[in-house]
Amino acid sequence: MKFFNNDDTKVFALGGLGEVGKNMYCVMHNNEIIITDAGIIFPESELMGVDYVIPDFTFLKKNESKIKALFITHGHEDHIGGIPFLLQTVHIPVIYAPNQAVGLIRKKLEDRNIKYKNLIAYTEKTKVKFKNIEVEFFRTTHSIPDSHGICITTPNGTIVTTGDFKFDLTPVGPMANLHKMAKIGERGVTLLMSDSTNALSEGMSISESKVDNALSEIFTTKTDGRIIIATFASNIYRLKHIVDTCKRNNRKIAVFGRSMENNIEISIQGGYIRHKDIFVTPEEANHLPDNRVCLLCTGSQGEPLAALSRIANGTHKQIKLRSNDVVVFSSNPIPGNAISISKTINKLYMRGVEVYTNTSLSDIHASGHASEEELKLMLRLIKPKYFMPFHGEYRMLKRHADIGISCGIPKENTFVLGNGDVLSIYKGEIKRAGTVPAGDVYVDGNRIGDIGNAVLKDRKIMANDGIVIVISNLDTTHNQLLGKPNITTRGFVQVNENEELLHTLEEISKKAILSKLGNRINYSDIKLEISNQLSSYIYEKTGRKPIILPVIMDIKRNA
Amino acid sequence: MKFFNNDDTKVFALGGLGEVGKNMYCVMHNNEIIITDAGIIFPESELMGVDYVIPDFTFLKKNESKIKALFITHGHEDHIGGIPFLLQTVHIPVIYAPNQAVGLIRKKLEDRNIKYKNLIAYTEKTKVKFKNIEVEFFRTTHSIPDSHGICITTPNGTIVTTGDFKFDLTPVGPMANLHKMAKIGERGVTLLMSDSTNALSEGMSISESKVDNALSEIFTTKTDGRIIIATFASNIYRLKHIVDTCKRNNRKIAVFGRSMENNIEISIQGGYIRHKDIFVTPEEANHLPDNRVCLLCTGSQGEPLAALSRIANGTHKQIKLRSNDVVVFSSNPIPGNAISISKTINKLYMRGVEVYTNTSLSDIHASGHASEEELKLMLRLIKPKYFMPFHGEYRMLKRHADIGISCGIPKENTFVLGNGDVLSIYKGEIKRAGTVPAGDVYVDGNRIGDIGNAVLKDRKIMANDGIVIVISNLDTTHNQLLGKPNITTRGFVQVNENEELLHTLEEISKKAILSKLGNRINYSDIKLEISNQLSSYIYEKTGRKPIILPVIMDIKRNA
Repeated sequence: MKFFNNDDTKVFALGGLGEVGKNMYCVMHNNEIIITDAGIIFPESELMGVDYVIPDFTFLKKNESKIKALFITHGHEDHIGGIPFLLQTVHIPVIYAPNQAVGLIRKKLEDRNIKYKNLIAYTEKTKVKFKNIEVEFFRTTHSIPDSHGICITTPNGTIVTTGDFKFDLTPVGPMANLHKMAKIGERGVTLLMSDSTNALSEGMSISESKVDNALSEIFTTKTDGRIIIATFASNIYRLKHIVDTCKRNNRKIAVFGRSMENNIEISIQGGYIRHKDIFVTPEEANHLPDNRVCLLCTGSQGEPLAALSRIANGTHKQIKLRSNDVVVFSSNPIPGNAISISKTINKLYMRGVEVYTNTSLSDIHASGHASEEELKLMLRLIKPKYFMPFHGEYRMLKRHADIGISCGIPKENTFVLGNGDVLSIYKGEIKRAGTVPAGDVYVDGNRIGDIGNAVLKDRKIMANDGIVIVISNLDTTHNQLLGKPNITTRGFVQVNENEELLHTLEEISKKAILSKLGNRINYSDIKLEISNQLSSYIYEKTGRKPIILPVIMDIKRNA
Repeated sequence: MKFFNNDDTKVFALGGLGEVGKNMYCVMHNNEIIITDAGIIFPESELMGVDYVIPDFTFLKKNESKIKALFITHGHEDHIGGIPFLLQTVHIPVIYAPNQAVGLIRKKLEDRNIKYKNLIAYTEKTKVKFKNIEVEFFRTTHSIPDSHGICITTPNGTIVTTGDFKFDLTPVGPMANLHKMAKIGERGVTLLMSDSTNALSEGMSISESKVDNALSEIFTTKTDGRIIIATFASNIYRLKHIVDTCKRNNRKIAVFGRSMENNIEISIQGGYIRHKDIFVTPEEANHLPDNRVCLLCTGSQGEPLAALSRIANGTHKQIKLRSNDVVVFSSNPIPGNAISISKTINKLYMRGVEVYTNTSLSDIHASGHASEEELKLMLRLIKPKYFMPFHGEYRMLKRHADIGISCGIPKENTFVLGNGDVLSIYKGEIKRAGTVPAGDVYVDGNRIGDIGNAVLKDRKIMANDGIVIVISNLDTTHNQLLGKPNITTRGFVQVNENEELLHTLEEISKKAILSKLGNRINYSDIKLEISNQLSSYIYEKTGRKPIILPVIMDIKRNA
């Protein structure tokens, strides 16, 4: 890329700037590229039928031979979810990930039948050296075990990337390694890239220990019925605490939902969760007394197909609610899920069970991301010369930059960037240096990128107003319409109630065709005439604008 | 209806129970029915293409001759939005509405070309008498002027329905008529139906006067740039305050968004807003100094086509943002709109303007609905024998019933009901008495009810995965397939990138047809075979499940 010189080090994001999700950051020096994280983001509802959005890998594909390794900070989907798609597209020589993430990645690759041998677990002691770049790790705290920040030493300076983190001074798992962060800071850091997800929240986040207390309290006060807990499947510390609490309170646990089952299996293998014998099958749970049972399930976001939603609907095969059940949402609502969560809660209320959420009981969930004061602590420990907030929507990045300025970073040394914007580091100085291709790539089903705007536009129209298909047979030898046009609709109107309307559409199509059957038949003309006539009639009669799809079959040609 | 006897009075909801919206309540005695409110509810996103959801009018249609009048409590869409559809379906002899609502209803009917002459404005002094039923009104406070509660006297007892209300002891408009409520309570009330929208909120709602102070503060501190305010168009008191504040601060107002323009016009006509000369056109505003301008616009919920969204996008024809602009969201986010609001805010930040929302400044918006302590005050003033919470999701109704119990209503005298559930009042006693038909009716475009579940299901499938249409010509005289099947898709894959896939689908369809061309041609068999073969191939190759639509054209028959 002509705007680079060969002696500088480039840093840029392929995802994670201007959005919460899809994290992917690159550091490039000469012929070496290292990547941190390869996440997905779940699509907004207007991206109809799109299952995941992944980063644009064009730059990586073009520079494939330079890629040395992918480093993973932790095992959440917005950091590892893109790996299967990345491996299908680009050769990645080796992936380094912490223990829990290794388990989750392995599962993910197995599910998609992808064979990959160079998946290596790192610990805080691991150091990885390439020709110009050296990588080491420091332990952080987050809502999944084994989260790490990464320290990348280059000939032009040191870059620290936090991954997702919070500071929890009474954590359920091990403490973050404040001392290693302090040492790295002492050595001197050129650029800090730090998690902006909760930059808009003041103060400090709640400690996971407080959540433990709130959950324990429910177990000691609700002693007659079953306790049903919905939480994020990947929050292993929370699951560990629930297991320990059940052990103390002599309750067995039945698990519902595939992601919950997977995470528990991986956590047992990894030694995060003991008391393997506490888990029972749903059948066994149904034969135990209510106050000896805890049900642990997915669905804390009201996802329609998740276990809790089906339990609330009364459509779960194995679990029927009882009026002495207690349901606990040990989670916070992700924006956009408010309505589906509220629906689930209403249904639970209608079945007469008691429901706890984080609005009824404030310490029932703790975020995994740093609030303002924790962000300041990271800035003070690492004390970088330059600061680039990452992982967040624009206003979060902006706010985080302001927090950086309040901690003494000069305003001109802060960078609020977008995906693809390149920073050039040269002998400890940083400036902006052009862009690389970056954007959203859609995955629908198992295919990457074959859903473009035209397809999405059609889906949107059909979602709102359906499709009207007009099929006509033309005899092009005699310039004749054979029979009547055939009108078929989907998603347009209830057909049985609208026979007259459909008959009229047939007549209009016929007239449109006949009006265009001159000496020379022009298919485009005929199709356009059908579309115009039908759309205006349909809009007048119904107020709807379906796709009008005229198909002309040439009988001469076909015969 | 056989479960009724002729001497009792029946009360039921056709909408508003188990939902926030679509309010419609009926009181029936012998041959007299009176209706209060006729609202809509905006559809959830899964109701694809549905514009409004309205109550099922079946019961009213069947009992058309008994209907005496429709009474409107206030002019919000969830209370008046269903009127055009009701008038198209059922004969309503007369509609009584308060002044502001009359203006809004008239506008609504004009827009839809509906002529209706018996729209009568009532005031608090109005009394309406029918043979058995007598109706009077009491002034309440809500986020629109002229809100009223309704007191309905029947031979079997008095029914009070609050409409939507809050108690604001320092209101911007007139005070609620506490004394009339107290008198009605003194006289004795059999049944209270009361607004449950904010039953989950503790304490008391914020007074509109506090909002005035917060808004005024912005005007006195931000004196260099334009002030852009987005709020609910129907909140006339808020608009009135903004007008008065602009007057004091020597700013002119330009208005953006059709509903905002309509409401301001009606409010000027009704005398709610004076200073008509303060309004300028967008062009005039663009020629004034920035600190002499206020822009008042729709879009506080991030609606993509609303004025504020277009301003934030930079696609508004008349207004371009400047870095010294201040944008104020004088509103609260309606659940489900969080993501679109957040998008708008990010875009505003990216354009460098300052943004105030109700999270950054708590008194910038006040709800129009009563919180717990206000609900208690209503219960204490009216002191009914029986209590039926209305207008709310199930958990709100349930919570409101508990609030009623805490105010001394016996538990067995509270009714948490669903739409269509009938209460029978006889000599001051109330019991449950069966149901009448009630449910959701969908309006798409201008047609009521011709969108059923099958149509919605098709829309959903097409929204996610598109449609694959297979057209084949059969010569049924010779049992031959004429030419190749024609494959057309919409919303499925990007066609230019998938020629090979489409060619394979053609081959598979051809084989499927040929395998079924025996002595007797059975169209259903052939279609089923095409569908089965194509769906399994498509799912394997793409992970998608589009609608497969086989169309067979019989050339013999057509010729």
